[in-house]
Amino acid sequence: MITHPDFACEPWCLRAVGLDLEVLAQAESVFALSNGHIGWRGNLDEGEPHGLPGSYLNGVHELRPLPYAESGYGYPESGQTVINVTNGKLIRLLVDDEPFDVRYGELRSHERELDFRAGVLRRRAEWASPSGCPIRVVSTRMVSFTQRSVAAICYEVEPLDGSVRLVVQSELVANEQLPPPGGDPRVAAVLESPLVAQENTARDARVGLVHTTMHSGLCLAVAMDHLVEGPPGTSVQAESLPDLGRVTVTAVVKPGQRLRLVKFVAYGWSGSRSLPAVRAQSDAALAGAVQTGWDGLLAEQRAYLDAFWANADVILEGDTEIQQAVRFSLFHILQAGARAEGRAIPAKGLTGPGYDGHSFWDSEAYVLPVLTHVVPEAAAHALRWRHTTLPLAIERARQLGHRGATFPWRTIHGEECSSYWPAGAAAFHINADIADAVVHYVDMTGDEDFERDIGLEMLAQTARLWHSLGHHDSLGRFHLDGMTGPDEYSAVADDNVYTNLMARRNLLAAADAARRHPGRARELDVGEEETAAWRDAAESMHIPYDAALGVHPQAEGFTRHQVWDFDATKAEDYPLMLHFPYFDLYRRQVVKQADLVLAMFRCGESFTPEQKARNFTYYERLTVRDSSLSACPQAVIAAEVGHLSLAYDYLGEVALMDLADLEHNTHDGLHIAALAGSWIALVAGLAGMRGRHDDLSFAPRLPEGLTRLAFRIALRRGCLGVDVRPGSAVYTMENGEPVSIRHHGRPISVAPGASASCPIPAGPAVPSAPTQPRGREPVRRRPPSGLATVPG
Amino acid sequence: MITHPDFACEPWCLRAVGLDLEVLAQAESVFALSNGHIGWRGNLDEGEPHGLPGSYLNGVHELRPLPYAESGYGYPESGQTVINVTNGKLIRLLVDDEPFDVRYGELRSHERELDFRAGVLRRRAEWASPSGCPIRVVSTRMVSFTQRSVAAICYEVEPLDGSVRLVVQSELVANEQLPPPGGDPRVAAVLESPLVAQENTARDARVGLVHTTMHSGLCLAVAMDHLVEGPPGTSVQAESLPDLGRVTVTAVVKPGQRLRLVKFVAYGWSGSRSLPAVRAQSDAALAGAVQTGWDGLLAEQRAYLDAFWANADVILEGDTEIQQAVRFSLFHILQAGARAEGRAIPAKGLTGPGYDGHSFWDSEAYVLPVLTHVVPEAAAHALRWRHTTLPLAIERARQLGHRGATFPWRTIHGEECSSYWPAGAAAFHINADIADAVVHYVDMTGDEDFERDIGLEMLAQTARLWHSLGHHDSLGRFHLDGMTGPDEYSAVADDNVYTNLMARRNLLAAADAARRHPGRARELDVGEEETAAWRDAAESMHIPYDAALGVHPQAEGFTRHQVWDFDATKAEDYPLMLHFPYFDLYRRQVVKQADLVLAMFRCGESFTPEQKARNFTYYERLTVRDSSLSACPQAVIAAEVGHLSLAYDYLGEVALMDLADLEHNTHDGLHIAALAGSWIALVAGLAGMRGRHDDLSFAPRLPEGLTRLAFRIALRRGCLGVDVRPGSAVYTMENGEPVSIRHHGRPISVAPGASASCPIPAGPAVPSAPTQPRGREPVRRRPPSGLATVPG
Repeated sequence: MITHPDFACEPWCLRAVGLDLEVLAQAESVFALSNGHIGWRGNLDEGEPHGLPGSYLNGVHELRPLPYAESGYGYPESGQTVINVTNGKLIRLLVDDEPFDVRYGELRSHERELDFRAGVLRRRAEWASPSGCPIRVVSTRMVSFTQRSVAAICYEVEPLDGSVRLVVQSELVANEQLPPPGGDPRVAAVLESPLVAQENTARDARVGLVHTTMHSGLCLAVAMDHLVEGPPGTSVQAESLPDLGRVTVTAVVKPGQRLRLVKFVAYGWSGSRSLPAVRAQSDAALAGAVQTGWDGLLAEQRAYLDAFWANADVILEGDTEIQQAVRFSLFHILQAGARAEGRAIPAKGLTGPGYDGHSFWDSEAYVLPVLTHVVPEAAAHALRWRHTTLPLAIERARQLGHRGATFPWRTIHGEECSSYWPAGAAAFHINADIADAVVHYVDMTGDEDFERDIGLEMLAQTARLWHSLGHHDSLGRFHLDGMTGPDEYSAVADDNVYTNLMARRNLLAAADAARRHPGRARELDVGEEETAAWRDAAESMHIPYDAALGVHPQAEGFTRHQVWDFDATKAEDYPLMLHFPYFDLYRRQVVKQADLVLAMFRCGESFTPEQKARNFTYYERLTVRDSSLSACPQAVIAAEVGHLSLAYDYLGEVALMDLADLEHNTHDGLHIAALAGSWIALVAGLAGMRGRHDDLSFAPRLPEGLTRLAFRIALRRGCLGVDVRPGSAVYTMENGEPVSIRHHGRPISVAPGASASCPIPAGPAVPSAPTQPRGREPVRRRPPSGLATVPG
Repeated sequence: MITHPDFACEPWCLRAVGLDLEVLAQAESVFALSNGHIGWRGNLDEGEPHGLPGSYLNGVHELRPLPYAESGYGYPESGQTVINVTNGKLIRLLVDDEPFDVRYGELRSHERELDFRAGVLRRRAEWASPSGCPIRVVSTRMVSFTQRSVAAICYEVEPLDGSVRLVVQSELVANEQLPPPGGDPRVAAVLESPLVAQENTARDARVGLVHTTMHSGLCLAVAMDHLVEGPPGTSVQAESLPDLGRVTVTAVVKPGQRLRLVKFVAYGWSGSRSLPAVRAQSDAALAGAVQTGWDGLLAEQRAYLDAFWANADVILEGDTEIQQAVRFSLFHILQAGARAEGRAIPAKGLTGPGYDGHSFWDSEAYVLPVLTHVVPEAAAHALRWRHTTLPLAIERARQLGHRGATFPWRTIHGEECSSYWPAGAAAFHINADIADAVVHYVDMTGDEDFERDIGLEMLAQTARLWHSLGHHDSLGRFHLDGMTGPDEYSAVADDNVYTNLMARRNLLAAADAARRHPGRARELDVGEEETAAWRDAAESMHIPYDAALGVHPQAEGFTRHQVWDFDATKAEDYPLMLHFPYFDLYRRQVVKQADLVLAMFRCGESFTPEQKARNFTYYERLTVRDSSLSACPQAVIAAEVGHLSLAYDYLGEVALMDLADLEHNTHDGLHIAALAGSWIALVAGLAGMRGRHDDLSFAPRLPEGLTRLAFRIALRRGCLGVDVRPGSAVYTMENGEPVSIRHHGRPISVAPGASASCPIPAGPAVPSAPTQPRGREPVRRRPPSGLATVPG
């Protein structure tokens, strides 16, 4: 946990005043810069102290054997792990031969600021060396959204009292020493010295290093160049070693003068092109960046972000903390996906090595639905990446004895890297999550070319999988047995409701898309008999229901199981998976993360309002939220069934997941899906957005304390603005086509350029609040409304 | 498979005429000698060629880390593996400087014979060296039943044509090079050079080696001494190196003369005593063996086995192959358990390194029931070993969050070594299997001291476990959720019928034993409230039943699952676990090994005859017998429900499991439980024995072709002889107390020294034969009776 939150609450930036070394690693994650291609953790310029040094390139990974004491058929033998690539962030400073290190001397002031609109990380420090020489360091760091291979730093030093000799060493360091991994199985395996030096060059203020990886066969080139401004006599010198590039700037600087260094860094890598080609690529990118110049890069960055915020911004009045958090979230979602282009969006983006740098189902289930509304082209890129892995997914399904395609539970490059099949191979729902992301993207954007060229094939291959995985029983009901749903405290159960509902949707969507694109369907060998079989399976899909309790079991038999003994579970026993064996978790009623509740969100049409209310209350008392993916759907359904105050609490939890380090693992990277979840909790939760583009509905209602929620969503070729205040909501079609929506069930139509203001009906009687497992209640965002209205 | 079975069919020995190098490893397993403490595989005296060299000491193991790519709470971190100890079998021979190696020169004849009554392995070979010099080698090898630490070899060479110079090298070799392990995950991990040399000594014809193990901290001493008889001029010389002891005998031998060497080998080891103590132990054992002499050892061995066979022999007339096989089985069961004394009976005995040398549930569920009837003191020893591991089992239960004790799924020393929890930790039925072995031993022997001192504690701790593992539902039914039953093609299911029935028995037996031993119960803190809770859980135990199909599901939901597509499964796809992923096996109706059928055998009182018949037919069509543990209970229930011909087929399969290498892994050791299974298939199958000592029942009926089945069982302080012929059965109480038994339901009483002859009633109408999965039918032991009666 970030125990000493020193993040000032400002609407458009995240500012840390002071420097708490206890939470250095967490701060490195939240201050990470990325464009989806390059990722730089928010390490201090001078490299040390650090929590976890980190520089990443999306897709650059090493292979490692996956060991099994007892192996089994179909277990993957090789895993993929993100590696820490050449660090281009380093700028070390000597002040009269004493290294600038915040642990020594006197740190008089320190401030960092992540600017969501400028897209830069600023730092300002005043420090006196152990011998008493005070200086000011100001640095600004960026990873460019517009020049995908480029990052840059502007670094300025000035003496505050008397003349000093300054030596600035701007470095590239490969194979940095990393801290040893902890005992938590979720922590990424750290690979030592993954880079093999191939070439190093240095001339003027420019250095280049080229490395390859040992097993994954990748080639990686990094080059840096510098602009130096200093007093007369400033000297610049470059040198290189196999794992080190260094440009040394030496100057004697008097008060009133300063030494200014602009560092341009360009990265290039490839798994297929030659070393000269990759080297040329980074050199070219570097040349482009130098020509653009620092100010030019800043201006491009600002323009890119202005365009982003124009569509993506969410205004929340009445809660400055969440206002800041949601912009922080949107900024990091953009950073994770903006320029991934042909690569995955990892669970931790490029902010840390957590989860081995793998991408999971939550990219499609949480991140892409948001990107589809705020940066649709990034969503398309992410889905195109999945499509490039389709041949591997088809091969994997074949290996497992099934038709169609099964995408990997966790991967970087496309091969399955999960070594624990009950929570890996058995979690087939990822295929329906991917299919649903395709359907959602096509529906909201109307991108028919995408559907024909990419989407139909993905839908058809996943539909084939479901049809192959399931079977009809003697009563004609279609079952999916032995599946693991989203909740990781259950596994390998029959008829998981989430999986079955999502598979049903997948089957129907594939059949519908095949009907819309008959030529492409023929190319894919999808015939009428096959689509008829898909529709039949979908229509016969069995959804278990516990009539005695009046609730849906998460999966067959779930509600008959013993309820976990929450009263005997101590606070330090959470997360449960680190203190109890899977066998005992799996056979009890205890829910790590929303599963049936997620089904009610994603497939709400399959539940009556009464079922939703009963189910929600039932699962609230079982859900411990040991996953960052849980609070978001709980917020959404809490809002839908009328627990508005609770929805607000869960919104707070999901929005502060990383800023308050609620899962205790922000140190190895941010939870990108949870960041997306804060947008979902607002838009699908408080504003109640559901449905397809031609049947979009809203049911906005603000919890006490919030006075305004405004956001825009990309919708076909236009943009729909929604502005909710306590008594009414205004819907504005800013451009594009006329849109028919529903407001609290009432159909309204909005023409382009026009607005419709709709009063918000009085809410239903507030049902009695559900309870959570003892000690797992969310932090109350506001006092209960009953108390709040009592005069103080 | 032993593709060229050259085993002659003889009633009291296993003889192999000729030497097939293709099945060398399998022959080494079936010709292995052991006394339960020392195990020597049937390697050729000269060491090479070999399939798999092997010398084992029960309990001597090394530790190895159990790797997990994704770890989890409660996963064991360290495994135990049997190691190949110092080889004391080696006797190399040079004939005029050409090594005796059956691959070179001319092997004119070769014969091996395992004598079940003498307890020796004899070998006789005539060989001409490449230069044409013919000799005869005759060797006799034994591992002594009476002198537990001793093995011995008598080795004789004589020239057949002309004088030769013979050099005989009798060796001790530590850290033998072993063949690399194959890809089959069941093959034991082979550890290279597990022994660390500590001491080596040589004088006269005597050599000693002392080693320790690196991680498990064991000390191991081996010593050998020799008696040499040869023509005048025969010289003897001893030498030693850290990993080699050698006595070299040189002689020029003329036709009519021979060179004779008797080699005595003594082993000692300990995990706690000092090197000098262990060395002294092996030296003392060696001195005793030398004093006894070769003829003395032979005489002791014969006397021991005469006493064994007097009680244990099974006579089967009409099928010489099975007559031989069942004596082979009994001999190897004796070898596995006779002198284990404080150590486990491993799944492969001491005949090979298969399953890492681990002991599993089948020791208690298959082997001990047989030992209890034929060598009851060996059963008591095996249970006492389990009892020594009780503290580890209590600690393991605590680690997993439960009360009582949970014994390891696989182990050598007592710690859990299973790294795949769905088929390890979740297979809790092993605890009920152990408890039932305790109950059965106490019941049949009347050993009340054992029950009070050992048994009650084991029953109480396992009953505590079951009470802790289960829970009552809202209807008051007691459930055991998330358990893995015997069938390894299903896992982690609710209310596995076998597990629930066996747990019920465990709970009641514990409560009953506590009532019989109130003082001991108080010592164990077993009070009346606790035993009442055990009885309540037992009486409320839920046994699922599929009323629509009229069969018991193996576990809740099983009969609703999709039936495996047997028609699409090719012969080479078996065993299925090597060609299909667990996730797909677990969710289908496909049975690796008898599970519900085993429940009907072990807990027959819980099923009506009609249920047994329907269940048997239902599971026959699902059971592929990819486990050696399956045919035995299938034989038993086939006989009970009237499929006598099928019972005979399964008897044939289980009896020939290793002699015909039906599971394709006899090369790394025999299947001790399947060997026990052939006795069970005869006694519980064809003779229909069931019940407790005071309510023992038989329902003998011989399949066509068999003319007599006779056996004895130890019963309390007496021995009951059963002699079945086609029309009648004779029951003889050979000594002990009067016994009341039932014959086909009819009560009869037999006084000591008296016999009762009972006619066998006509059998019921033969029901139509059940079917098995395509290609998995057992080999028909005889033509169907309808055909057999047609004159030829």
